[in-house]
Amino acid sequence: MTKSVDTLLIPGPIILSGAVQKALDVPSLGHTSPEFVSIFQRVLKNTRAVFKSAAASKSQPFVLAGSGTLGWDIFASNFILSKAPNKNVLVVSTGTFSDRFADCLRSYGAQVDVVRPLKIGESVPLELITEKLSQNSYGAVTVTHVDTSTAVLSDLKAISQAIKQTSPETFFVVDAVCSIGCEEFEFDEWGVDFALTASQKAIGAPAGLSISLCSSRFMDYALNDSKNGHVHGYFSSLRRWTPIMENYEAGKGAYFATPPVQLINSLDVALKEILEEGLHKRWDLHREMSDWFKDSLVNGLQLTSVSRYPSNMSAHGLTAVYVADPPDVIAFLKSHGVVIAGGIHKDIGPKYIRIGHMGVTACNKNLPYMKNCFDLIKLALQRKK
Amino acid sequence: MTKSVDTLLIPGPIILSGAVQKALDVPSLGHTSPEFVSIFQRVLKNTRAVFKSAAASKSQPFVLAGSGTLGWDIFASNFILSKAPNKNVLVVSTGTFSDRFADCLRSYGAQVDVVRPLKIGESVPLELITEKLSQNSYGAVTVTHVDTSTAVLSDLKAISQAIKQTSPETFFVVDAVCSIGCEEFEFDEWGVDFALTASQKAIGAPAGLSISLCSSRFMDYALNDSKNGHVHGYFSSLRRWTPIMENYEAGKGAYFATPPVQLINSLDVALKEILEEGLHKRWDLHREMSDWFKDSLVNGLQLTSVSRYPSNMSAHGLTAVYVADPPDVIAFLKSHGVVIAGGIHKDIGPKYIRIGHMGVTACNKNLPYMKNCFDLIKLALQRKK
Repeated sequence: MTKSVDTLLIPGPIILSGAVQKALDVPSLGHTSPEFVSIFQRVLKNTRAVFKSAAASKSQPFVLAGSGTLGWDIFASNFILSKAPNKNVLVVSTGTFSDRFADCLRSYGAQVDVVRPLKIGESVPLELITEKLSQNSYGAVTVTHVDTSTAVLSDLKAISQAIKQTSPETFFVVDAVCSIGCEEFEFDEWGVDFALTASQKAIGAPAGLSISLCSSRFMDYALNDSKNGHVHGYFSSLRRWTPIMENYEAGKGAYFATPPVQLINSLDVALKEILEEGLHKRWDLHREMSDWFKDSLVNGLQLTSVSRYPSNMSAHGLTAVYVADPPDVIAFLKSHGVVIAGGIHKDIGPKYIRIGHMGVTACNKNLPYMKNCFDLIKLALQRKK
Repeated sequence: MTKSVDTLLIPGPIILSGAVQKALDVPSLGHTSPEFVSIFQRVLKNTRAVFKSAAASKSQPFVLAGSGTLGWDIFASNFILSKAPNKNVLVVSTGTFSDRFADCLRSYGAQVDVVRPLKIGESVPLELITEKLSQNSYGAVTVTHVDTSTAVLSDLKAISQAIKQTSPETFFVVDAVCSIGCEEFEFDEWGVDFALTASQKAIGAPAGLSISLCSSRFMDYALNDSKNGHVHGYFSSLRRWTPIMENYEAGKGAYFATPPVQLINSLDVALKEILEEGLHKRWDLHREMSDWFKDSLVNGLQLTSVSRYPSNMSAHGLTAVYVADPPDVIAFLKSHGVVIAGGIHKDIGPKYIRIGHMGVTACNKNLPYMKNCFDLIKLALQRKK
């Protein structure tokens, strides 16, 4: 492969920083060597930090070879145990990825109720969630913090309060794939029980890692064989992975399946970059870029955002806007070396485009990518008038 | 991380060729971009080639983010479908990894019978396998081609003949993790129905990819929802992945979960290197290196091989030998910058060492790694006399 000259502005995989990309180009390390153990130890501690969870909370991070999707399986298989006391899950759906999480849960035997917004692009009314929680007993509520199909941002803090007030025993589960690193996220403060993300989004690492964090409450549940039974599955079993992650974090090698050593070395650099800059600053930078970009499209070009804008209901790591001819706009940008994505929502897929602005694209003010992208979209639309 | 100067001679991850390592250091590509589609298309075709399967056989390759272990889940979950007609599996066990495959199968609800050799380090007598196949009806037989815990090589050709003669309807399943790329392997000729491997062994790519190949017979079974029911699981579901892999191989992008683009680019280079040199030549080079190394240890240093040697029952990608004080030998080599592995078999773990010789280490005759390794082992033992 020759090095791609295209500017990749899809909502993941994203452009890597030079140091993160370079960290892939390292010899294989023994997976239980002291050198690798020290890297993985730091990755686990820093994973907890980017989720905003304190070590004292006894939350447990898991970093596994896999895609973001695998995180759904990890939750589903460790929640629907063979003697699971409550298989009912409330899925708060704001788009395609929320619905796929529901599909995954069903494939493990969960009984799923789905609540949706009144209109695509809105978030689910809080009263609807509260109502459902009052009417039924749910073992878990899942929320997709940012649904990448619609760019809807859910108000986790408010949903958390609703759950804690109405049904405190229910596990609070968050798909944070397009959120960790670019959206305000407070694992401990919001009482999240399980959150999952992927390496190739706002964390800014290469694709290939499933990253999740469990509360001590969820760990107690998932590891209680005698009460809740066994996991239907093997690679996704937290019982099998927990001693491995505990050992690595304690500075000792352990083995269940071979970790992808180069990817983890690269993730290490990505996490350090985020924490060195500061999480809050990263959130601010993503918000600023997102506000400018959405404002330019919505107010500058009179485009309609798929998610509600201006508001706090829109993602800060990607933008979804309706355009008259998405394939034409996408092809025009591609011909100018800029790659953006099409729509994927089943009802409105062919009507909109999606542009990612995560990681260096949003945080490095010297990079002209988003300005160029806006200019090209403007040009693409003008030449059609 | 500073670049490791240690010479990594464990049975995976292995030392990468310069070009394979360099292929990691590339910008993220869009996972449905024409550039990536073309890479993934070639990877899928070449995967079939290194398993020695013709496109005309309609075998179906799957290359997923994950560890080798995930391959066990892929088979188990797609074999133990909700209406699986036969959940009985015969596991031909030659060590720890065979037994773990059995554990994985059980975790999905399989009824598992295990046959073992008379003595650790031997292969399972063929008559024992035939006897079991005559007495019971098995839906599948699993064989670990090379069990990395013992370096035992199983005679797949003979086992295949036994299955085809005694129980032709039984699926023939091979864990080829430490085999594809370094051992003679004939997917089509031996009538294999499912074979799995991992990127970081003799294929010579970075860790992080689960690579498997299904026969058309197994695909017909696994995709027959109306007859065999659904998969308990999501990320491992072949029903969900099949259209994705078919599309990529046909030169079209598709999406179920984000592929690890850098790893797949690196795998592409690794597969091309193998096929350009020629599979048969690679097998020969591994055999030559293995024969020399084992002979030097067994006849030169009077060490006892864990697997039977000389014979055709020993792996050609790794060597397992008993030594009086494994931690001392391992530490001595490490102090000289060479990393080898300890034993992991539950009964003999603390009594032996394991040395990997796969990929460039075996195939590039200019590299002095194995000669140095032998000299160091010799030195380690002599200084204790």
